[in-house]
Amino acid sequence: MSIHYPSGQGPVHFQKPLVNKKTSRYQSTYSKRGMSLEKEINESNQYYLATHQAVIHKKPTPIQLVKVDYPKRSAAVIREAYFRRPSTTDYNGIYKGYYIDFDAKETRNKRSFPLKNFHQHQINHLMACVAQGGICFAFIKFTTLDLLYLLPATKLFEYWQDQKNGGKSSITLATIKKDGIKVEYGLNPRLQYLPAIDQLIAIYEKGEKHE
Amino acid sequence: MSIHYPSGQGPVHFQKPLVNKKTSRYQSTYSKRGMSLEKEINESNQYYLATHQAVIHKKPTPIQLVKVDYPKRSAAVIREAYFRRPSTTDYNGIYKGYYIDFDAKETRNKRSFPLKNFHQHQINHLMACVAQGGICFAFIKFTTLDLLYLLPATKLFEYWQDQKNGGKSSITLATIKKDGIKVEYGLNPRLQYLPAIDQLIAIYEKGEKHE
Repeated sequence: MSIHYPSGQGPVHFQKPLVNKKTSRYQSTYSKRGMSLEKEINESNQYYLATHQAVIHKKPTPIQLVKVDYPKRSAAVIREAYFRRPSTTDYNGIYKGYYIDFDAKETRNKRSFPLKNFHQHQINHLMACVAQGGICFAFIKFTTLDLLYLLPATKLFEYWQDQKNGGKSSITLATIKKDGIKVEYGLNPRLQYLPAIDQLIAIYEKGEKHE
Repeated sequence: MSIHYPSGQGPVHFQKPLVNKKTSRYQSTYSKRGMSLEKEINESNQYYLATHQAVIHKKPTPIQLVKVDYPKRSAAVIREAYFRRPSTTDYNGIYKGYYIDFDAKETRNKRSFPLKNFHQHQINHLMACVAQGGICFAFIKFTTLDLLYLLPATKLFEYWQDQKNGGKSSITLATIKKDGIKVEYGLNPRLQYLPAIDQLIAIYEKGEKHE
């Protein structure tokens, strides 16, 4: 095994510390931000994998290794490393022959979703995947309302460009309701997002036929 | 940002230490094994991305975080963490609307490729992706011969099953030449593997029509 990183990508400073303590022992819930949606999606992915419906995984967070110890007769221990900014979105995989690519984002807002949750590199990656024919979207959760939507990447690009041209810095919930596909809760998996992807695929195939 | 791992996946002990020193400062070439093929593939991927031909990335190695420091006014420092066994292959992405998934493997052997380079979880992952219609393969390099092949995952499954039934523990180069698609070196990128994927896609489409 060897690890290589694209050149010019040094360690990044995250905008916020993941927890507020100076030093903390890691727990499974070390960050509130985005936690519950990610957990829900990961559980759905495990269910979809086990039932042969889709193969979608969360990508590991890239790490810049600096120092690693190799104790005798036990596992290698990373003693100094830094988080890196990912060059892609968090999730990708395959469903019914389609390449699936998305990022999961949460907001506690009740009326709109702030575009600052996205970064230019994520938009660039989604654009490159859309150009290759991928089914790409943002998985958005309004946590206080418990509302979930898949927002097609092509719509996200419009709002992103509009913002760069001095337009609104957020997408209203009304707009997301209009442009997005609602994700319903169920029993198993709790988060049933493949039916919403089916709708995105139908929209994509319809768009392809118009060309 | 939050990180979750599938349950039941504790830190893994790698078969070999990545380097032989007890403690080592990390360098860009900290492991010989698999290094040059991975570097070649990563460079090709960067070229294919920049020229809008394909979006294929190497997945980061998953890490189990244990202790992280958050110094004031500087980046978070990982102080204790362990390597985890990935649950997927190393590379995936999209090309011409097709989901692409593969692992890169090198051997210094001149006559055959040892199947012990693969692990059951990688085979399982490739099987799940093939079932969804992905273009899946092993990217195999005979380093001393400088020969490269894409071996279709479906062929790999046959040899893997044969080995489990007491058959041969390696695939001969002659077999790989027969069942695989040769990858040619070029100028830019040095490793021209998209034309080989085109051939795999043609084989896949032909197979689909026979159904």
